[in-house]
Amino acid sequence: MTQSKNFIFKFALVAIVFTVFSCKKENTAGTNSKSETSISQEHPKLILTAQGVKNIREQLGSIPIFDNSLQAVKEEIDAEIKAGIEVPIPKDYSGGYTHVRHKRNWVVLQKAGVLYQILDDEKYAQYVKDMLMQYEKLYKTLPLHPKTRSYARGKLFWQCLNDSNWLVYVSQAYDCIYNYLTEEERNKLENNLFKPFADHISIDSPQFYQRVHNHSTWGNAAVGMIGLVMNDQELIDRALYGIKGVDLDTKAKDDDGGFLNKDGKAGFLANIEEPFSPDGYYNEGPYYQRYAMYPFLIFAEGLHNVKPELKIFEYKEGVLLKSINALLNLSDADGEFFPLNDGQKGMSYYNSALVTAVDISYHFGKQDPGLLSIAKEQNTVLLDDSGLAVALGIKNGKEKPFLKKSINLSDGPEGTQGGVGILRNEDIELVFKYAAQGSSHGHYDKLSYSLYEKGEEVIQDYGLARFVNIEQKGGGNYLKENKTWAKQTIAHNTVTQNETSHFTGKYDIGSLHHSDLHYFSSENENVQIVSAKETNAYPGTEMLRTMAIIKEKDFEKPFMLDIMKITSASANQYDFPYYYFGQVLQTNFDFQTSETLKPLGTKNGYQHLFVEATAKANTDNSKFSWLNKNKFYTLTTVTNANDALLFTRIGANDPEFNLRRDPAVILRRKNTKNTTFVSIIETHGSYSPISESALNSNSTIAALQVILDTTDYTAIAITTINNNTKIFITVNTNTSKETKHSIKINNKNYEWSGSYYFK
Amino acid sequence: MTQSKNFIFKFALVAIVFTVFSCKKENTAGTNSKSETSISQEHPKLILTAQGVKNIREQLGSIPIFDNSLQAVKEEIDAEIKAGIEVPIPKDYSGGYTHVRHKRNWVVLQKAGVLYQILDDEKYAQYVKDMLMQYEKLYKTLPLHPKTRSYARGKLFWQCLNDSNWLVYVSQAYDCIYNYLTEEERNKLENNLFKPFADHISIDSPQFYQRVHNHSTWGNAAVGMIGLVMNDQELIDRALYGIKGVDLDTKAKDDDGGFLNKDGKAGFLANIEEPFSPDGYYNEGPYYQRYAMYPFLIFAEGLHNVKPELKIFEYKEGVLLKSINALLNLSDADGEFFPLNDGQKGMSYYNSALVTAVDISYHFGKQDPGLLSIAKEQNTVLLDDSGLAVALGIKNGKEKPFLKKSINLSDGPEGTQGGVGILRNEDIELVFKYAAQGSSHGHYDKLSYSLYEKGEEVIQDYGLARFVNIEQKGGGNYLKENKTWAKQTIAHNTVTQNETSHFTGKYDIGSLHHSDLHYFSSENENVQIVSAKETNAYPGTEMLRTMAIIKEKDFEKPFMLDIMKITSASANQYDFPYYYFGQVLQTNFDFQTSETLKPLGTKNGYQHLFVEATAKANTDNSKFSWLNKNKFYTLTTVTNANDALLFTRIGANDPEFNLRRDPAVILRRKNTKNTTFVSIIETHGSYSPISESALNSNSTIAALQVILDTTDYTAIAITTINNNTKIFITVNTNTSKETKHSIKINNKNYEWSGSYYFK
Repeated sequence: MTQSKNFIFKFALVAIVFTVFSCKKENTAGTNSKSETSISQEHPKLILTAQGVKNIREQLGSIPIFDNSLQAVKEEIDAEIKAGIEVPIPKDYSGGYTHVRHKRNWVVLQKAGVLYQILDDEKYAQYVKDMLMQYEKLYKTLPLHPKTRSYARGKLFWQCLNDSNWLVYVSQAYDCIYNYLTEEERNKLENNLFKPFADHISIDSPQFYQRVHNHSTWGNAAVGMIGLVMNDQELIDRALYGIKGVDLDTKAKDDDGGFLNKDGKAGFLANIEEPFSPDGYYNEGPYYQRYAMYPFLIFAEGLHNVKPELKIFEYKEGVLLKSINALLNLSDADGEFFPLNDGQKGMSYYNSALVTAVDISYHFGKQDPGLLSIAKEQNTVLLDDSGLAVALGIKNGKEKPFLKKSINLSDGPEGTQGGVGILRNEDIELVFKYAAQGSSHGHYDKLSYSLYEKGEEVIQDYGLARFVNIEQKGGGNYLKENKTWAKQTIAHNTVTQNETSHFTGKYDIGSLHHSDLHYFSSENENVQIVSAKETNAYPGTEMLRTMAIIKEKDFEKPFMLDIMKITSASANQYDFPYYYFGQVLQTNFDFQTSETLKPLGTKNGYQHLFVEATAKANTDNSKFSWLNKNKFYTLTTVTNANDALLFTRIGANDPEFNLRRDPAVILRRKNTKNTTFVSIIETHGSYSPISESALNSNSTIAALQVILDTTDYTAIAITTINNNTKIFITVNTNTSKETKHSIKINNKNYEWSGSYYFK
Repeated sequence: MTQSKNFIFKFALVAIVFTVFSCKKENTAGTNSKSETSISQEHPKLILTAQGVKNIREQLGSIPIFDNSLQAVKEEIDAEIKAGIEVPIPKDYSGGYTHVRHKRNWVVLQKAGVLYQILDDEKYAQYVKDMLMQYEKLYKTLPLHPKTRSYARGKLFWQCLNDSNWLVYVSQAYDCIYNYLTEEERNKLENNLFKPFADHISIDSPQFYQRVHNHSTWGNAAVGMIGLVMNDQELIDRALYGIKGVDLDTKAKDDDGGFLNKDGKAGFLANIEEPFSPDGYYNEGPYYQRYAMYPFLIFAEGLHNVKPELKIFEYKEGVLLKSINALLNLSDADGEFFPLNDGQKGMSYYNSALVTAVDISYHFGKQDPGLLSIAKEQNTVLLDDSGLAVALGIKNGKEKPFLKKSINLSDGPEGTQGGVGILRNEDIELVFKYAAQGSSHGHYDKLSYSLYEKGEEVIQDYGLARFVNIEQKGGGNYLKENKTWAKQTIAHNTVTQNETSHFTGKYDIGSLHHSDLHYFSSENENVQIVSAKETNAYPGTEMLRTMAIIKEKDFEKPFMLDIMKITSASANQYDFPYYYFGQVLQTNFDFQTSETLKPLGTKNGYQHLFVEATAKANTDNSKFSWLNKNKFYTLTTVTNANDALLFTRIGANDPEFNLRRDPAVILRRKNTKNTTFVSIIETHGSYSPISESALNSNSTIAALQVILDTTDYTAIAITTINNNTKIFITVNTNTSKETKHSIKINNKNYEWSGSYYFK
């Protein structure tokens, strides 16, 4: 989905050896090259199987969710058949007519193919055949797509990525009507359409295909799936292992600043290997995982069916199925994915790719009954063997709630490049990011977090600056504000030092580093903690952030405790924003609103923030309450008299109104070396505009104090309005669960084992 | 609910004659003075009746919605009884502890009384008695409430208004346990609590009581209801007809700028007479009607039960019950009231006052089955005879949908002071206000409108600037921005001339005038129109606004057509805002965003608008599209090259962050005498962040033209992208449905009868 407006292919491709056509079979890479012999000649075999179709037909009419899904697809496709086939000459960018039509066609073809198999009605096969023949006729005449913005132009679409999408779906359709066609028809399609199509997106477009990247995954799956249907071992191998003999310049970059192919890896297996951590976390984050998920799983399903000996679902200790569990856990209470890195808000597990994921995970995994409850919410299933399994599970009342608990997901191929920790208690969810750069879609947001209550954002992550597929906004592609705002550090709920983004906003540098987990603790249901360290974002400055969700009896709901300990060799300015929503309710400090609004700075995202008000902080605690969607929130933060508070709003230097006018409060601490930011965010009470009553609209905290802050320990005292005091101590150095700690603070002894103390 | 921060009692009260205690019975005003003899001595008799209680007890257990309501109340009150009685010494403003507690107590007392009657369990009577006795003990010691902000201070509360609320509820509780008490106990309560209480809110506070105002309605009901229970004819008469012999200065004003008592009317009947139009429209608008509704109806119910010969529900041709129908029609698809004048958004027919209204309307009206469907949505009923009737209706499956259609509601006691027109088609609702000033809660917004789709605001009315009962925001009272912003003309979707509000924002002047209906037409389901004229807002300038909701086949949904014809003796600047929500999507004109944001002006509301961008309009049509909550909207407006467009955002000169940061586009036409603004707003298409697909995201209009604009006619041509052209002609002069019109435009003849032509 990356756009590359000004892509200049600066570095020559090294050694694009066009010998693949002539290479010998025994020369294919990997150990599975002999599997060709096992390819089944029965059709369908790819996603639907002959046996599966038989089972489905037997159950039809008695499996409500499947029957309904089938009926919906039938109505949709019958309407399409009635409307007639349209295969226009490619012309437009995303959102334009020809783009939308070809996109629609791939969906329609796949579904019509399935209907033919399940309903055994030739009108669907005829329809698929007719449309494929029109594509055959068109495709052989096509030059590159006329729009030039992509770094890898397709033929049907402006980018190879969309061509690959098309082939992933259409190979399924072809499989479904394979036996309906004569050999002559098949040859025609394969020679004039499918083979050249697969070659264009791979051999002709190595900068797209020969990478570890979500784009390449689609390319690999497309080539592999049509290869499985056509029983073309060469294509299958090209899918699994990449284009033989092609190595890209390891220093070349795409337009997002991502390396084209840093270490020369390529192919479907490498694409599984690299981006997924052993916990199943996908390095670009959940939004792109959702997008990448479909080709991963649908090709895996095809491989499982056609080449079971590959044991694809067991590859890398079953990481594909693990990744589905990770992805589901990366969603809020409404099933919406946390918008880590470039992520469009609102994307959720109701997306069709997740129907695929959930059904496949259930069928090919361990039949987790929790997945059935999500499938039930999705209210649709795949029209294949896995969908049948889910439908039968639901029919037989096997579902249980899918419980999302606190979870720590490591990042990096080996799970050693930081990660994402999610703390959950009751309706509160904290998402803490201490991961690696996240590929070209990564943001400069080390140790950033976002906070949710019941699926509503309390402290937001901005997400991406893009209106995906809305043509009026930059053609539906990434907007320049994605780079100038959304990726910058100040756009995130973490520390910006000296108004400069982490790694000076440079992808090359960011890609070399990752944060490190200090500890994660979720054993105590009432005290969930994640702590991580970042030492590279600002050379010479070390940031250790410890975040906790704590449930305590004086508080209505679990609250968030945040301790950001900064150790630096030099005196710096630290900016610490809180991207809240809603309206200012109350502060315990005086602020002055601005007569005219000016930008906070000139670069690194600061140019996009208007300053609405400024304040001098209090000497002990600064408190800020706000009201959003009839709920109350209070930030209590430890400040000193030299601290400033800024009320800002996004939207400066935004000539096309591309940014949302969202507010923030920024705590600014100047000319400071070592310092520790300590804050609590409470969500509390409610307001009813119907009864006009405000419940629990005030903070429960009377005082928040740092009572000790050394290299080894940071100790916080939280005193409530009921005059109860709780002490939280976090160990700042490496420790084990068994290590005993004993310290004296204000003449009182504290003793405990492990990373933290709370009492 | 009015606050009067700096109320200075500038004008002496004239002739506060404290002779009422000694006045003779035969001297009471009106014709119903002999009704004393008919007062029933049975208790309960006020809201519950002895026969009603018998009926309810018989049905208990077989009327689900009643049983559930009863159970909920029982649980609520049992918990209160367990928690114990608290009757604190009054101290706080709204939202503060003592305020909230006494407010809670009135609810609890009323409910406990009802429970005693229905459940026949003495623990509830005992509880009511105990609390009343504590009030008796406290009340006799009380001076005026210590908080001084109100123009009429209460004793339990800071304002007499809340004292009156208390007595309206508590008189019901007293009625319920009347027979449970000894005569001695009753005498104690009546002499030390109820009688002095009633006197304080009336005789001691004539500036509060002796008016036509929602405050007075509460006061009248309070005095009257306790009078009915106590069988005190003097109190009943004082309630119905006002304090005998007291006349207020007709020129004195309250702190809102409202006249205290312009024409000397007072008492409950006058309060019915004055504010309600014959159609049941309440002059302050639905938000305050909802608030006033409870005392109107509950006292009416009491009068009906105790003094049936008054025929209160037939008073003024049954206006009380008509007003309920009007109020229900003044709500959007979600049941939320349109925030005309001072209205807090979110208030809806789920408010308990509306449960009262719906149940009473059903029981004492014509048993409209549509009301049952609203009662079912409310999911609760009154625990009295009317609630029983509703519960039985629902139980017997009598409910039908409450259909809200286009409706025109006249304003003014005689229905001759303008009105409010609501146009509805499918999911689109247009609310057009051409009413009178709306009393002290009125806004300067002649010929303003707001537009809704399925209960979502498309073009908003700001509502009030207040956070009702949220103590942190100005004590929960009106904020100064209510006057400086919310009431000003520029805050509304109508024309502001020369940056001055209608009637120069002066209540005295505004109160003298009202707009006039030109025509209202809802016979044709596809073309719903309301047209009205305003000639006084700007002397020398006449505004005729014709608004239509039109359903046409080329359009996905009904669209809004807006023709504002201005005729002026002088050259003026006209500002024409559109208070949309969401994000700018596209314009067909170039705009320049502002580097720094400055206020648009210095007064009349302009000081609160930041200018985010400016543009020169196009020579024919200026188009502006936006995206909100995943729906698309387009404004197409006829402009000329001298017009300017301003993108603004509320929030300038707002030192306490009291205002929402909402956007607008303002069309500005300078140095112009006569002109006609013609616009269409389309709502179209949708965006799914899950499938990432944008449907119908573009306008259907290719061109919008004024093809004729004379004193007599304005003709508009609407050409769609399918190249279909429709002509809309509105007659600008008085005409009847039968009048035949014939004109020639561009050599084509148009003939029709009545106010408009559309084809």
